[in-house]
Amino acid sequence: MAIKVAINGYGTIGKRVADAVDAQNDMEIVGVTKTRPAFGCDLAVRKNYPIYCTYDDAEKISAFAESGYECHGGLSDLLAVADIVVDCSPGKVGAANKAKYEAAGIKWIFQGGEKHAMTERSYTSSANHMENVNVNGTRVVSCNTTGLSRTLVPLYNHCGQLKVECTMIRRAADPGDSNKGPINAIKPVLQVPSHHGPDVMTVKPEIEINSMAVAVPTTLMHCHSIVATLPEGHGLTTNSVIEMWKNSPRIIVMNGAQTGISTTAEVMEFARDIGRKWGDLHEIFVWEDGVKLDGNTLYYFQAIHQESDVIPENVDAIRALMGTESDWKASVAKTDAAISRYNNL
Amino acid sequence: MAIKVAINGYGTIGKRVADAVDAQNDMEIVGVTKTRPAFGCDLAVRKNYPIYCTYDDAEKISAFAESGYECHGGLSDLLAVADIVVDCSPGKVGAANKAKYEAAGIKWIFQGGEKHAMTERSYTSSANHMENVNVNGTRVVSCNTTGLSRTLVPLYNHCGQLKVECTMIRRAADPGDSNKGPINAIKPVLQVPSHHGPDVMTVKPEIEINSMAVAVPTTLMHCHSIVATLPEGHGLTTNSVIEMWKNSPRIIVMNGAQTGISTTAEVMEFARDIGRKWGDLHEIFVWEDGVKLDGNTLYYFQAIHQESDVIPENVDAIRALMGTESDWKASVAKTDAAISRYNNL
Amino acid sequence: MAIKVAINGYGTIGKRVADAVDAQNDMEIVGVTKTRPAFGCDLAVRKNYPIYCTYDDAEKISAFAESGYECHGGLSDLLAVADIVVDCSPGKVGAANKAKYEAAGIKWIFQGGEKHAMTERSYTSSANHMENVNVNGTRVVSCNTTGLSRTLVPLYNHCGQLKVECTMIRRAADPGDSNKGPINAIKPVLQVPSHHGPDVMTVKPEIEINSMAVAVPTTLMHCHSIVATLPEGHGLTTNSVIEMWKNSPRIIVMNGAQTGISTTAEVMEFARDIGRKWGDLHEIFVWEDGVKLDGNTLYYFQAIHQESDVIPENVDAIRALMGTESDWKASVAKTDAAISRYNNL
Amino acid sequence: MAIKVAINGYGTIGKRVADAVDAQNDMEIVGVTKTRPAFGCDLAVRKNYPIYCTYDDAEKISAFAESGYECHGGLSDLLAVADIVVDCSPGKVGAANKAKYEAAGIKWIFQGGEKHAMTERSYTSSANHMENVNVNGTRVVSCNTTGLSRTLVPLYNHCGQLKVECTMIRRAADPGDSNKGPINAIKPVLQVPSHHGPDVMTVKPEIEINSMAVAVPTTLMHCHSIVATLPEGHGLTTNSVIEMWKNSPRIIVMNGAQTGISTTAEVMEFARDIGRKWGDLHEIFVWEDGVKLDGNTLYYFQAIHQESDVIPENVDAIRALMGTESDWKASVAKTDAAISRYNNL
Repeated sequence: MAIKVAINGYGTIGKRVADAVDAQNDMEIVGVTKTRPAFGCDLAVRKNYPIYCTYDDAEKISAFAESGYECHGGLSDLLAVADIVVDCSPGKVGAANKAKYEAAGIKWIFQGGEKHAMTERSYTSSANHMENVNVNGTRVVSCNTTGLSRTLVPLYNHCGQLKVECTMIRRAADPGDSNKGPINAIKPVLQVPSHHGPDVMTVKPEIEINSMAVAVPTTLMHCHSIVATLPEGHGLTTNSVIEMWKNSPRIIVMNGAQTGISTTAEVMEFARDIGRKWGDLHEIFVWEDGVKLDGNTLYYFQAIHQESDVIPENVDAIRALMGTESDWKASVAKTDAAISRYNNL
Repeated sequence: MAIKVAINGYGTIGKRVADAVDAQNDMEIVGVTKTRPAFGCDLAVRKNYPIYCTYDDAEKISAFAESGYECHGGLSDLLAVADIVVDCSPGKVGAANKAKYEAAGIKWIFQGGEKHAMTERSYTSSANHMENVNVNGTRVVSCNTTGLSRTLVPLYNHCGQLKVECTMIRRAADPGDSNKGPINAIKPVLQVPSHHGPDVMTVKPEIEINSMAVAVPTTLMHCHSIVATLPEGHGLTTNSVIEMWKNSPRIIVMNGAQTGISTTAEVMEFARDIGRKWGDLHEIFVWEDGVKLDGNTLYYFQAIHQESDVIPENVDAIRALMGTESDWKASVAKTDAAISRYNNL
Repeated sequence: MAIKVAINGYGTIGKRVADAVDAQNDMEIVGVTKTRPAFGCDLAVRKNYPIYCTYDDAEKISAFAESGYECHGGLSDLLAVADIVVDCSPGKVGAANKAKYEAAGIKWIFQGGEKHAMTERSYTSSANHMENVNVNGTRVVSCNTTGLSRTLVPLYNHCGQLKVECTMIRRAADPGDSNKGPINAIKPVLQVPSHHGPDVMTVKPEIEINSMAVAVPTTLMHCHSIVATLPEGHGLTTNSVIEMWKNSPRIIVMNGAQTGISTTAEVMEFARDIGRKWGDLHEIFVWEDGVKLDGNTLYYFQAIHQESDVIPENVDAIRALMGTESDWKASVAKTDAAISRYNNL
Repeated sequence: MAIKVAINGYGTIGKRVADAVDAQNDMEIVGVTKTRPAFGCDLAVRKNYPIYCTYDDAEKISAFAESGYECHGGLSDLLAVADIVVDCSPGKVGAANKAKYEAAGIKWIFQGGEKHAMTERSYTSSANHMENVNVNGTRVVSCNTTGLSRTLVPLYNHCGQLKVECTMIRRAADPGDSNKGPINAIKPVLQVPSHHGPDVMTVKPEIEINSMAVAVPTTLMHCHSIVATLPEGHGLTTNSVIEMWKNSPRIIVMNGAQTGISTTAEVMEFARDIGRKWGDLHEIFVWEDGVKLDGNTLYYFQAIHQESDVIPENVDAIRALMGTESDWKASVAKTDAAISRYNNL
């Protein structure tokens, strides 16, 4: 029987998670929430996702019908018919929501905007799927942490020890955000080290990592500049690291000089060209010619598609929490095969 | 029997035209050309479009097989099995190509990068479909001219007379182009008036129009700021102009204040959200609250998606030249219905 | 005896007006106001401008001394020793300030952020200096209106009649502003026509003008794309219009192709190169090769340095209100000669 | 007697070096070269710098007079009257020039665009002034290397050992360059590690350093994200590092949160505000609240004004080569005091 999944918050992340869940044959969407009858409702209708109101408020619920949308009730009504809820609401309301989910007696998944201290557990597919099997709730970590986990965990698994410094060059605004700047500046994040890198330790505490971050005037992807110190006797070469990543899930390794994909702009065009819905790129993009292992020091760049790399992790996390698949690689294979059916031309 | 369509130049425009043609039930793609075995070949393979080499050169043709792609021959071979060719090669090689197409005895369509003086005939669906019925060749005009034609032709058809001044605020580079600037400047096009506006007269000579242009540091869409002087007794109001456009094909009219779609960034997000392939927007986007008819002077803004608004016009132009549909509205309806099947979530 | 000038608001505009006034031999700065002891105070100290507090509030006044700055009192104290005050405070507090200035019995000048309805009188040097002679108060119009006035008034004076449409391509943020976007979008101003163009009629009611505006991701200058319809028998040519502007004050006419100054970025570099303080450009920049008179229709582009083109107008306005120079050209010559002494390498 | 200084290449760097030299009382400019009578000649005339032609070519030399500029001869003529030449010509012509300078029997200084392998010696004021005393020629290292040297050398001098990883977030184009992009992308430099960091070792071989670099869509400053590993027993604290830098020449340390200077845009506004010619900032800007010493690991950000931080080093290098001042701190003090006379309001 399919796992009944609720999406609380049908926005940038919620709509993507919903479609990825909907593509799986062991899950179904039982409803999505909107705060009010706005644009996203049309998408839900088109996809046949039942609409619920974010609030248990009769007046707010009836506002949907007045705008011509069928609303099936408030959040409580949705939780009552679900096995698990994926919370995709904007950050900072998590603690109150968690109480509701627990009261409803269903499992829950938060996103990286919430803190580990609130969820007490975090998740990425390759780092700690097994530890999340059958637990009540977890947090799928942020786009940056997910991205670091993708490339660092296989490395750690090989080496048994890692010390990492990462500079995150972040897109300053989302592609559809026309208010935020800067237009012509580099903005260092003056909290040093930043919180981004250490967040990896919530899913893989054995990796020692720090990070610094700057925001720059672009809207497409984040870029990580990474220096990892491997232990003596690591036995790796530049080429074997590249091979390791090519054989790891959800990493794309391409040669910038050969393909002409030299910036995040061309990476995003590549995603459009291969037919990805919304032009998304669930994989982490690593430039093959930007990888260099120099003695024990590994240098590499990777690009992160902020609004989409965590989408497949949410699907895997559902299987972990519901206990239906304890082998992370099996879940990843299943998730990605299903997604690829809608994701390619 | 389906019209056999060749695509000469399977790049940014070519791949889009190919998919739009492929979606029609009265046409089929008999082949696409590439200069060499590069990235686009994978897309063609995935779509089952036969690959041909741009050149009739045995060595260049055999290079494809060496890279693992089946190449069905040179351009001549492709032209021999086609009824019509859509030339989507980079500008400035048109004259030589036209000779080849005529020698092959098939019909041909060029894009707006070529000059009207070379093709001697130009095309947009709403302006002059009928005049292109059964002719040997034509030119689908540029993204900007197509965009102006979409909104001005219905206006002209109502008023019988129009004098138009347009300032084109152009995206300075394509989204996947990481070389072109400027990063922080406004670049006026010092040819005044610019050639863009008057190009409308190649499809609708009765519209009197001039334009100026500036390039600005954005990669998403062009924006037109338009001032049209209507004749006395035009009988229109701001609202009736808006209604006219809402009832005209391939124009989207939305209220910026109500929808929050206040810039070209949100327009492009809207296109992604409604599931358009590549995030394209074939329609011209007009801000409802940016339209104002003040006496005889009509002010409005419209946004143009450079790489995609001409795609459906190419499909209609094929029907015109092949003489299979002389009613432009019927062709447009057929084209757009077929496209919408792949274009929505 | 020198005119005693107070600057109320020593920020982006205020500090520039102060230095321009200070350079004149018929004026002196008797004080500048700051809301609190912050960075700008150091500049005032370095320039020997007496510092006053924006508020008549003992506590706020004494805060300056605690930070090591000598504060000479509150706004009232400053007004008591001034002949005229230039209000350079952030917009929207004008009405309350005007009451204070009138109570103090001194003359006052506001900036373009305030509305004509409040000041009841507006000013640019070339348009209406004479009409402002000996009046109690006026408003130096905005950077855009000042820029339009510079090029249109000489044209109007020649032709006697003008109908103008202007599209303003505006820098979306100030150069030192790192919060405002958009980073990658064009933002049409959906109030159509915009208020900018018609504001010219507050200084030259005879010029018929409308405008549209878009904001674009740049921080350097605004650019105007202008279409002016001249009356029959105007007797002008493209060249004679260019000559007219070359002979008009505060207009720089340069050929983009010959000088390589093809965008607003190079215009700003030019200003830095010729040693202008802060890299400012008080003049309006017109591209010679972007001017074209086609029958009765004149097309041209001009670039506006937002934070500085109004600076010399403020100096002239002081002379007008104080009645010390009723000939606008004489005032302009005097102002500019004095400024040039600090403005060149 | 004043040192006679020739500037070969009066462009972006050359004009700045010329003015800095001209401000010193122990040096004088005996001439500057231009390839042809273009814009920069006016600046030279205004500053009374004799103009020479870059080439010893009678026809090219006489072209200057035809354009109204007095040209004093070719490069050979200039070298004949100079004690030392500062080569500020665009990169890659250095080797040929060096031969000319040696033939003329005068001393020479190249810029960082040339390679250490050609000059065989490199220079920054704090790293190796003494080693450059009385030598025949040297290379003032690039803006990035100079910037790293400013903050790392004092640190090295204290610790005796340093291991540094630096990510350089580079402005992709100069402020007056309107051709280069990207407009909306992050471009990793796929040579890993990049050459920038190790260049520090040409002036201070004892510092172990690697770097990675990305280019981003901004025109103002470069930003360095630096992780330095100090040796055990370094005896430093976050505060003592900050104090060390505050007491080192040509470093500005300011608190971003307190001053509102949170990005490179505000840093550049600060430079304009304090009256720096061209809005330049010769100093390296370090955010006080972006410095953190965590055990043996020091994290910090610094911003580099690409076209100006090397200017005062050129002046010091002249004194080193001419042997007139062997104490680097004495030279720095002299240089900076003289520059400050033209650099402040």
